Amino acid sequence: MNRIKRLIRNEKLFNTPYIPFTSDKFHDECGVFGIHGHAEAANLTYLGLHALQHRGQEGAGICSSDRRQMFIEKSMGLVIDIFSEKRLKRLPGDIAIGHNRYSTAGTSSLKNVQPIMVNYSLGSLAIAHNGNLVNAIELRTELESRGAIFQSTADSEVIIHLIASSREDTLHDRLIDAVSRISGAYSLLLMTENEMVAIRDPFGFRPLSIGMLDGAYVVASETCAFDLVGAKFVRDVEPGEMIIINDEGMQSVRAVPSPRHAFCVFECIYFARPDSNVFGNQNVDAMRKNFGRELAREYPVEADIVIPVPDSGVPAALGYAAESGIPFDCGLIRNHYVGRTFIEPRQSIRHFGVKIKLNPIRKLLEGKRVVVVDDSIVRGTTSKKIVKMIREGGGAKEVHLRISSPPTTGPCFYGINTPTRKELIASTHSVEEIRKYITADSLQYMTWEGIFKDIPDPEQYCSACFNDKYPVLCCQEKAEQFDLFT
Amino acid sequence: MNRIKRLIRNEKLFNTPYIPFTSDKFHDECGVFGIHGHAEAANLTYLGLHALQHRGQEGAGICSSDRRQMFIEKSMGLVIDIFSEKRLKRLPGDIAIGHNRYSTAGTSSLKNVQPIMVNYSLGSLAIAHNGNLVNAIELRTELESRGAIFQSTADSEVIIHLIASSREDTLHDRLIDAVSRISGAYSLLLMTENEMVAIRDPFGFRPLSIGMLDGAYVVASETCAFDLVGAKFVRDVEPGEMIIINDEGMQSVRAVPSPRHAFCVFECIYFARPDSNVFGNQNVDAMRKNFGRELAREYPVEADIVIPVPDSGVPAALGYAAESGIPFDCGLIRNHYVGRTFIEPRQSIRHFGVKIKLNPIRKLLEGKRVVVVDDSIVRGTTSKKIVKMIREGGGAKEVHLRISSPPTTGPCFYGINTPTRKELIASTHSVEEIRKYITADSLQYMTWEGIFKDIPDPEQYCSACFNDKYPVLCCQEKAEQFDLFT
Amino acid sequence: MNRIKRLIRNEKLFNTPYIPFTSDKFHDECGVFGIHGHAEAANLTYLGLHALQHRGQEGAGICSSDRRQMFIEKSMGLVIDIFSEKRLKRLPGDIAIGHNRYSTAGTSSLKNVQPIMVNYSLGSLAIAHNGNLVNAIELRTELESRGAIFQSTADSEVIIHLIASSREDTLHDRLIDAVSRISGAYSLLLMTENEMVAIRDPFGFRPLSIGMLDGAYVVASETCAFDLVGAKFVRDVEPGEMIIINDEGMQSVRAVPSPRHAFCVFECIYFARPDSNVFGNQNVDAMRKNFGRELAREYPVEADIVIPVPDSGVPAALGYAAESGIPFDCGLIRNHYVGRTFIEPRQSIRHFGVKIKLNPIRKLLEGKRVVVVDDSIVRGTTSKKIVKMIREGGGAKEVHLRISSPPTTGPCFYGINTPTRKELIASTHSVEEIRKYITADSLQYMTWEGIFKDIPDPEQYCSACFNDKYPVLCCQEKAEQFDLFT
Amino acid sequence: MNRIKRLIRNEKLFNTPYIPFTSDKFHDECGVFGIHGHAEAANLTYLGLHALQHRGQEGAGICSSDRRQMFIEKSMGLVIDIFSEKRLKRLPGDIAIGHNRYSTAGTSSLKNVQPIMVNYSLGSLAIAHNGNLVNAIELRTELESRGAIFQSTADSEVIIHLIASSREDTLHDRLIDAVSRISGAYSLLLMTENEMVAIRDPFGFRPLSIGMLDGAYVVASETCAFDLVGAKFVRDVEPGEMIIINDEGMQSVRAVPSPRHAFCVFECIYFARPDSNVFGNQNVDAMRKNFGRELAREYPVEADIVIPVPDSGVPAALGYAAESGIPFDCGLIRNHYVGRTFIEPRQSIRHFGVKIKLNPIRKLLEGKRVVVVDDSIVRGTTSKKIVKMIREGGGAKEVHLRISSPPTTGPCFYGINTPTRKELIASTHSVEEIRKYITADSLQYMTWEGIFKDIPDPEQYCSACFNDKYPVLCCQEKAEQFDLFT
Repeated sequence: MNRIKRLIRNEKLFNTPYIPFTSDKFHDECGVFGIHGHAEAANLTYLGLHALQHRGQEGAGICSSDRRQMFIEKSMGLVIDIFSEKRLKRLPGDIAIGHNRYSTAGTSSLKNVQPIMVNYSLGSLAIAHNGNLVNAIELRTELESRGAIFQSTADSEVIIHLIASSREDTLHDRLIDAVSRISGAYSLLLMTENEMVAIRDPFGFRPLSIGMLDGAYVVASETCAFDLVGAKFVRDVEPGEMIIINDEGMQSVRAVPSPRHAFCVFECIYFARPDSNVFGNQNVDAMRKNFGRELAREYPVEADIVIPVPDSGVPAALGYAAESGIPFDCGLIRNHYVGRTFIEPRQSIRHFGVKIKLNPIRKLLEGKRVVVVDDSIVRGTTSKKIVKMIREGGGAKEVHLRISSPPTTGPCFYGINTPTRKELIASTHSVEEIRKYITADSLQYMTWEGIFKDIPDPEQYCSACFNDKYPVLCCQEKAEQFDLFT
Repeated sequence: MNRIKRLIRNEKLFNTPYIPFTSDKFHDECGVFGIHGHAEAANLTYLGLHALQHRGQEGAGICSSDRRQMFIEKSMGLVIDIFSEKRLKRLPGDIAIGHNRYSTAGTSSLKNVQPIMVNYSLGSLAIAHNGNLVNAIELRTELESRGAIFQSTADSEVIIHLIASSREDTLHDRLIDAVSRISGAYSLLLMTENEMVAIRDPFGFRPLSIGMLDGAYVVASETCAFDLVGAKFVRDVEPGEMIIINDEGMQSVRAVPSPRHAFCVFECIYFARPDSNVFGNQNVDAMRKNFGRELAREYPVEADIVIPVPDSGVPAALGYAAESGIPFDCGLIRNHYVGRTFIEPRQSIRHFGVKIKLNPIRKLLEGKRVVVVDDSIVRGTTSKKIVKMIREGGGAKEVHLRISSPPTTGPCFYGINTPTRKELIASTHSVEEIRKYITADSLQYMTWEGIFKDIPDPEQYCSACFNDKYPVLCCQEKAEQFDLFT
Repeated sequence: MNRIKRLIRNEKLFNTPYIPFTSDKFHDECGVFGIHGHAEAANLTYLGLHALQHRGQEGAGICSSDRRQMFIEKSMGLVIDIFSEKRLKRLPGDIAIGHNRYSTAGTSSLKNVQPIMVNYSLGSLAIAHNGNLVNAIELRTELESRGAIFQSTADSEVIIHLIASSREDTLHDRLIDAVSRISGAYSLLLMTENEMVAIRDPFGFRPLSIGMLDGAYVVASETCAFDLVGAKFVRDVEPGEMIIINDEGMQSVRAVPSPRHAFCVFECIYFARPDSNVFGNQNVDAMRKNFGRELAREYPVEADIVIPVPDSGVPAALGYAAESGIPFDCGLIRNHYVGRTFIEPRQSIRHFGVKIKLNPIRKLLEGKRVVVVDDSIVRGTTSKKIVKMIREGGGAKEVHLRISSPPTTGPCFYGINTPTRKELIASTHSVEEIRKYITADSLQYMTWEGIFKDIPDPEQYCSACFNDKYPVLCCQEKAEQFDLFT
Repeated sequence: MNRIKRLIRNEKLFNTPYIPFTSDKFHDECGVFGIHGHAEAANLTYLGLHALQHRGQEGAGICSSDRRQMFIEKSMGLVIDIFSEKRLKRLPGDIAIGHNRYSTAGTSSLKNVQPIMVNYSLGSLAIAHNGNLVNAIELRTELESRGAIFQSTADSEVIIHLIASSREDTLHDRLIDAVSRISGAYSLLLMTENEMVAIRDPFGFRPLSIGMLDGAYVVASETCAFDLVGAKFVRDVEPGEMIIINDEGMQSVRAVPSPRHAFCVFECIYFARPDSNVFGNQNVDAMRKNFGRELAREYPVEADIVIPVPDSGVPAALGYAAESGIPFDCGLIRNHYVGRTFIEPRQSIRHFGVKIKLNPIRKLLEGKRVVVVDDSIVRGTTSKKIVKMIREGGGAKEVHLRISSPPTTGPCFYGINTPTRKELIASTHSVEEIRKYITADSLQYMTWEGIFKDIPDPEQYCSACFNDKYPVLCCQEKAEQFDLFT
């Protein structure tokens, strides 16, 4: 207990949800991709990771097997910068798994980039993990007390140690043994010299889908990766299901009981790509359009133009415009050359903030009543700058902000990078207070009911960030930590 | 004469217009930015270059002066990747000029990245050049025969040598002397320890504007750079005008007579950012919207949805949709993490081409009659892939391609990276032949008259790529070279 | 058993003695240096490692502690290339240990560079190891079967895992527990946030000495490191002794019983620096001079000049010359800019071999009868080239080779990089056969008795490489492996 | 005149002899090697440069030609570190020249590394220069006033510009034209696509020899490079001679009249390798032995042991010992892993100086009267530390320093890195004063007559550093600069 607090204070451990929150957006923390039985395994994984780049930009890695040996290449950076043709040639074989990791300040470093590959008593093993465990600290403490030596601060390494120290004979049994110990969110890919294994936590927090290409099985976080490599969607990995893919084909095993589902609704609102289908093959773009339409119905306004905050606000803005009959336009130009390393000039010209990324077209906005559609407000600082930019730089007469999701009041412990509760503006301020802070003429958030008008079975979703109903409770110590950190 | 041909064959010289044309878009080759008399000169130049990144992604550089000494930093890559805080600190002083260079294969290398900085008999001099000289080979041959030694293959170096070998006493007179010798396109920034000089060719091919920030003069290729640094637009540098900015303020000198103007119409159609105002403060986005509206009037079609080829096709598509009444939507999702180093996987899965960048939303397009709006067709290969993607991946019933510019039939010699005439599909094929090639249900190009319905004074523009009327003729040898290369 | 063989075949494990033997010299595999309680701890460790550079050139590392946290920096390369001033500043604190690692091909990589630093249940721990364990494979197999995950292929990591999984309460007890399990050679330095611990195996194979500087304790592989930092020699760490150095001072603990000593005689013959004193403060240069004198008495020859193979043959050659009365000279010039990365040109000019390093002075050797003194012959290939060089390049009339050690017939398992038995020319050839092979006019090796005329107590030394009397037996499996590898 | 001073003050120009003098040894500034007509041209040049590494360690480069094109690779660092196998493969063809550059602080940078390769009106040209021009500033100023643009601060670039701007038709005539303008020391190699040209200044300051290998001509600064590649010495390039080597063979042209020779005597004393033969095939080791013998005759002393300052003092020490009958030994052990980047620890443990490189063997020196032989004293600081080290660290009873050259009182302007006159201890102090400063029991320098007892024709040598008789006078301005700098 004392040790746990010390660990946390020393920032030695588990970077979620305690990682510094450096942007003003929630962010997914990972994407995974794997393929078994294809001569171009590593190349296709490279393409798949590229398609999933939006799920993590800090670093990426690919592990492959030529059936005798496993190979691994990983680095900080974007997929396209990391993998040269030469480097891809160092990944021979017909099995490969890959991982994108989200960019965070602080504890980010190469040793935390996945896949993690180790040698243990049964041979070689690689793992790629999307999600976040809520009992990782406790498990790590216990494992260390039994002699385990950890190399990274990633919670995913706990799973490896649980497998290595399991008394079961086979990897499959050891993996079931391991997941019986862990709580939280995990869409996992594992790989040995001959086999690929996919497993998804019983709540199904993060998406994970199975596809097929030239007779080879493919597994990916989102279906947009299938589109790029030319694979056909087969079905989702079910919550609690373990999928074993080897030369005998695909085998399904019930690994953990799944009393309820808790799909992340924010995947629908913001994280997933519009061209992906998630959680039972629902199209993300279509959902967002509907959110926009519903938002227009719930919160109409007299205005001359509807513009999105690009790029994520586009579908909802199109929906809002269509429903309201107010013309849609692109009033903010986005500079896509912005990376995460942008240097803010010092001294007098500081605080460029959002100007580095966005610039309004004055000719278009001048004198107009403008509806701006965005998907969410986190701390409010960015929204404030955007409203100001549209009014001052763009010359708008009125600025009406419409958010295509309910107010976000709670942090996520299941694989999303969020700030502490205290930093979430909606957890401590009323909508009117927020409106004043961001200086908009009007501000409205979508209702929770609006969201679920188009999505069947709201109880199948996790909406904890909107309503504090956390599907998996953290231990008491964890709760205290939150106090510690809020 | 023999030597010139040898030089060209050996690819030793002048990479424009003979550089390999590796993308399927025309591309601007440079952006320039400079500021005189501001404590944050290098930092602001860094921001300015970032705003102009779309004009060149191969490499960038900044040169600054602290009034005693000049400093220079340049590298291959994007502005945000090149300049760390540490590196910006190595650029002290209150004067700075910077340059973005377009990424081309082959002769691209660090030695061609600008600004070029040299020591010569009058002291230090730096130069940043947007444009292309048509008589550079002849001048280089002449200069070499008099003993000059060239370090790069950039045509801009010719200007430096003309200045260094001029018999005039002052830099200003030497610069006037130098530009009296050169033909072609040049929007130039020069810099010494104490002064910044801007000069624009008599035709005014490329844009170049003057702004003001905190009492300091700023010069940039496009006004979007002013928006980012917070500068106010003052006026354009006039064709043939030399602007001298020093501690006495700004001085205007008529450097070369300017019998006619020849503003590049493609800046309006594709190159410049929509939020910039060019050629007498005309808004680019507004022009493109008008092109789209005119296109809808010229070439209407029965359809269910209008989608742009992102991002450049967006304004024209919005115009087309508005005029036609067909709903606008974003049916192609663009992956913005694509850089120029993307490795195509080998063997069976080659030819990903445009899929790396774009993916259709099938849910949106399936069974629809789709109008796709793009700004131009170069070789047709990309358009063919996009049509196929919308039909097969997206499931569209019909695909109607509308191009918001006339057929491009001629290469550019004034600073745009274009393929040879033979490679321009519209120079050798009829519109119907192109339609068949790209497998569209219909294809229509904007007329030349349509373009100039909204732009006053068509004769002030260069439309050589549409109509072969080249404002500055190349010498006979050059003409032969074109045969050589076509 | 099966698994062990597999591990070895896959080259996954323990790079000694199975590392490719790429030079034609035996080589020490490590040097260690540590200091406790000095404000310049890391800087002095840097100097100490520099003085010990001859013991390992593959890579080096330093770990330091500022009493709250431990810091580590390590890289491939030479000490002077690895540590910049900036990097040394990242090693604050008053405790530091460092390690030099020998350059070997194949399994050499950064992850094997020491110190190894880990977090385990008792906190942070760093280790630096000179020597080689003979039961590392067995221990690793056992540890892995209990769930341990290894990160490197270094046998030293076994010690870490034994400490982490020990049931004892304190580090000291856990270390004693750990060394009770390991067999072989180890001169070890350990470090925690507050303490430095030194321990030497019961045989004392490798040297390890204690010094004192400004009231701080220093521990180093050789006393030449004390000379450079200005420390005074105190005494050797005794075989089987554990030395604990903390703020209370130095404490000695008997860690393992030491029934007999087995100091490595090759440290005296070749490895240690001439200016070091080893194994009870005996000067290395003086021992080697005596070897040379004894060699002259045992094997005199009529000759005109005595020359050493530089640099290691110099002391023995001086001794031989002094005793024989034949003039000493430096007839071979050594190029000291040779590193381990020298590229042999391909094709016709291959096989430069020793010429890259040595060149004879023809003016000096021409027509002479030359005695060449070297310290040992490993495979004979280098000796053959040197004899040829002296005869052909130098123009010598006769070449008489004298070796200041007995024929080396057995590989070393205690921390020396040696080839397999089969590759040792003296294990399979008579002296006369070797003489013929290397084309010398005469060849004589020092006798075993000659070596120990000047060194007291031969039974305190390990001479296994001369007489096959291995002080620590490897397990049966190991013996089989040797068959596997010879 | 004013401008010249400004140039010098700004440190913009010619780094010799004004480069910071960072070691306490004179140093040669370059080595050159070239070969024409051998399939392994670049590989052999690599080996040749390695053999000449002692002449310059700052950087190196190789230029090759495959008869159609010229290739160049150069970097900062040692030859063996710069050239990987991959990099050597980028240097195809059967002609190559290479250059080693001496390491100096300050103005050293990649742009000054040679060969310099340029394109000019006659095609491609590469140049490698050993030596120093005394009128480079004047020539540069003149060339710049006529429009020349310089890229480096190397005086060698002046030669290139003189060739480029010459009115002569052929390279040979232009080169003769160019050397008629320059004064000072130059042993030059030039190369075009098909030809190699060697030229040596009329005084012959620096050595330059011709060899032959497999029918190909080789040119190198020293013959030790011939030994390594297996070439046979043919003859020296004569002072004032131009050697043209092409497919027709070797042609000799008298390029400049050579009224007197001025071979650098310091090449014999210290710079050249002992295994080289210089200035008419005289062996360097033999000359140095004779210096040592003469020194013993001139300045005998009662002592127990003679030791060299390694490595350069070895031949003279052997000579001194042989003549005096006092035993020779190696009492100072040199650490050969010292590079030029050694970081001196800060604070309390500063001033390690020579200890980083040398350590005395106390057992050998304790209580003895020691003669130490070195080749020269520059500023005296190192000698002082060595005397102290031998007395304190080594425990010597008496320390007698013997220098195998006369007192160095003047700086060199012909290609040697020397400090200013004021810094040369012998220019301002008597021998007795120096003895006191370095705390030796006795100090003696070789006489000028002693040096030339064994070398025929002293008037053929430049001894300006001993006697101020400079063979080529610098212009008046230069003389003033010296005041400026002394």
